[in-house]
Amino acid sequence: MMRGIAYGVGVGPGDPELMTMKAIRLILENDVIAVPGKAAKEAVAYQIAAAVVPELADKELVPVYMPMIKDRALIDAEHRKGAKLLEQYLDQGKNVVYITLGDPTVYCTFSYLQHVLEADGYQVELVPGIPSFCAAAARLGLSLAEWDEPLHVVPAVHKAADPLDQPGTYVLMKSASHMAEVKELLRRSGRDVQAVENCSMAAEKVYRSVEEIPDDAGYFSLIVAKERHD
Amino acid sequence: MMRGIAYGVGVGPGDPELMTMKAIRLILENDVIAVPGKAAKEAVAYQIAAAVVPELADKELVPVYMPMIKDRALIDAEHRKGAKLLEQYLDQGKNVVYITLGDPTVYCTFSYLQHVLEADGYQVELVPGIPSFCAAAARLGLSLAEWDEPLHVVPAVHKAADPLDQPGTYVLMKSASHMAEVKELLRRSGRDVQAVENCSMAAEKVYRSVEEIPDDAGYFSLIVAKERHD
Repeated sequence: MMRGIAYGVGVGPGDPELMTMKAIRLILENDVIAVPGKAAKEAVAYQIAAAVVPELADKELVPVYMPMIKDRALIDAEHRKGAKLLEQYLDQGKNVVYITLGDPTVYCTFSYLQHVLEADGYQVELVPGIPSFCAAAARLGLSLAEWDEPLHVVPAVHKAADPLDQPGTYVLMKSASHMAEVKELLRRSGRDVQAVENCSMAAEKVYRSVEEIPDDAGYFSLIVAKERHD
Repeated sequence: MMRGIAYGVGVGPGDPELMTMKAIRLILENDVIAVPGKAAKEAVAYQIAAAVVPELADKELVPVYMPMIKDRALIDAEHRKGAKLLEQYLDQGKNVVYITLGDPTVYCTFSYLQHVLEADGYQVELVPGIPSFCAAAARLGLSLAEWDEPLHVVPAVHKAADPLDQPGTYVLMKSASHMAEVKELLRRSGRDVQAVENCSMAAEKVYRSVEEIPDDAGYFSLIVAKERHD
């Protein structure tokens, strides 16, 4: 039997209207939908997609739990387990559509499953979604890059010690766990700083300076730090 | 009279199916559609949108010509001229939807118009689109960033002399005008290099190594250079 294809499909940053037509079509056309999380219907990606495709509720939903831990061996074991779960469906000739917040190529848990699936000989296809940082920049009314400016996207959770000293714009993601430290880094940079928490979601908040960003800002906080040109 | 709103709307990288529902709605709901280029119907952004929204052909199409020149004073004059063109409609209380390839916050000509419009007191709203580099990574089946990796998006046209020596992944955009130089830079970097020309368009081509990239690759060429982990 022909094996199914595993699709990694971005559903965008939160606003269901920012889903692409292709994401919607793939969800409609396929019966097995994998969702990151312990309970499929509680996942943010599920809630985004279900707002546009109510038929999703009646599909075969496969929750794939990826714990947020630091032990590499344990993580690898969890990724293998997640991939094996999808392979059961692929072996039956069924496609699996794994829906994910944002874009499947940018800090996406699907990347880990993809590595296992490809090593095991399965076909994987990625369908881009609006990444959170493009949505955040749009919400703030800022350009991320103009002319010859580079753009640096940095997961601040691991990199808070690096100075923001390259030319161009920095986007800091995943800063929530030590925001006070990140704010100190931003102050020292002398950059123009703005941030969005829960961009394009119901609980969205906009901050127009470092000082406005609360130290306990949530996981979906995204900071844009631009060079000053004045 | 209430002034209209200027919308900068990304229509994604080329495949009309990668447009968002929001982009489609804004084009359908508004009568004045601005398009970058000399002739509206020849613009790539127009052709993407018209494939999904055939009604576009009958709307008031406003071509905004932005010449590719290097003289800053001349460029500024052109941007002012383009913005003034849109302001005529905004002053009549009409919204203007400026459609653009990719995302309106990433190397987008609309940013220049936005600066003038905002300085003149007009309201601007940005609607994100799939940026070309997310589409290229998806097409190549590559992740752009995992775990604690940074992502650097660099317009190689101006930066070909910089070594690619930061940790993480580099995306090189706008390399076409001196691809031979850029290829030498890539060779020296020791990175794993893949590229897409005309991603998600009819003339799409994929290159799996530096050597495969032709020296005369076109304007819509995008290079992904990843660190080797072997």
